[in-house]
Amino acid sequence: MQLSPSLTQLIEALRCQPGIGPKSAQRIAFHLLERDRQGGKQLGQALTKAMTVVGHCQSCRTFTEQAQCDICASTKRQDSGLLCVVESPTDVLAIEQTGQYQGVYFVLMGHLSPIDGIGPKEIGLDILENKLQQGGINEVILATNPSVEGETTAHFIAELCHKYQVNASRIAHGIPVGGELDLVDGMTLMHAFTGRRTVSQL
Amino acid sequence: MQLSPSLTQLIEALRCQPGIGPKSAQRIAFHLLERDRQGGKQLGQALTKAMTVVGHCQSCRTFTEQAQCDICASTKRQDSGLLCVVESPTDVLAIEQTGQYQGVYFVLMGHLSPIDGIGPKEIGLDILENKLQQGGINEVILATNPSVEGETTAHFIAELCHKYQVNASRIAHGIPVGGELDLVDGMTLMHAFTGRRTVSQL
Ligand SMILES: [Zn+2]
Ligand SMILES: [Zn+2]
Repeated sequence: MQLSPSLTQLIEALRCQPGIGPKSAQRIAFHLLERDRQGGKQLGQALTKAMTVVGHCQSCRTFTEQAQCDICASTKRQDSGLLCVVESPTDVLAIEQTGQYQGVYFVLMGHLSPIDGIGPKEIGLDILENKLQQGGINEVILATNPSVEGETTAHFIAELCHKYQVNASRIAHGIPVGGELDLVDGMTLMHAFTGRRTVSQL
Repeated sequence: MQLSPSLTQLIEALRCQPGIGPKSAQRIAFHLLERDRQGGKQLGQALTKAMTVVGHCQSCRTFTEQAQCDICASTKRQDSGLLCVVESPTDVLAIEQTGQYQGVYFVLMGHLSPIDGIGPKEIGLDILENKLQQGGINEVILATNPSVEGETTAHFIAELCHKYQVNASRIAHGIPVGGELDLVDGMTLMHAFTGRRTVSQL
């Protein structure tokens, strides 16, 4: 027995999403058809709309529907002199949730990966270079991921900062707060040792 | 920081789906925006279309885009004289995947639940009664779930069958093939004992 074509198509389209397996796709499709057609239509419209109207901030490259995102539009943020470089808009969300950071961001939308044809231009480093050249930035905080590509990208941008005489710092990697030392991977443990700080000195 | 309104709306709409949590909803929305806008639009269209065109088979109540589903449209199936009653279209899929059943179905789209206002009419038993009255059915196989509601519903339909002099049978419940006896719940184990079959008799 074959399902109706529209239903098959819907299940297939759901199945392609990260974290949704075949069983889950089927469950969602049947749930919507059986109990929430209005919700299904709204989700359909929300998808179509978001894919169409959400673009990138011309200043920091994060997702926004306007020319500039709310953070870049804030003069208080701009005046901080702090610019934090991250790989993805989700990193911006995570940092904003701490409520501690008061500067602006620059979102690479990826990291350097020459093997995949992703060079400096593909992650917007020409735009970042313009920013560094224009001045007004006291410190660039490199918050790319602690992966090989993230480290390479951070290193590359650090050299760019050096070229324009702007301070650059790398966020600390180590044991997560509340984490257990023996459950942490070797790379993190190594970072934790390298990044150790003096707490008492004779 | 707030996300752009369309993005927030999309994440909210995704989060309402079964099996999708807040993190997962965010991951899907950002994945589509970053890497697969075309796929996002297609999913949006597939949703809108399915919610609009998928209706119920006038004969068995399962999902279909036509007046009658493929199974009900098959004369070979209709001529089998077998009608299997299930709670949901996913049950039809599961049984069809075994490739063993050659009859037609009747999909209740739920089960009797007086407390929720779901009586015989809400699960289409008036339509089923018409079928029983019209004749041509040799056996009704009751394949509702082995839950309290499923058993109650099966019992109710069995009495309907009795009224119209149609044979009714209940599918067997027991230890799943490959399952381990000591891992099975008590209710299933009880069913397995009640439904035991003689394999050797002196
Ligand atoms: Zn921005
Ligand atoms: Zn049908």
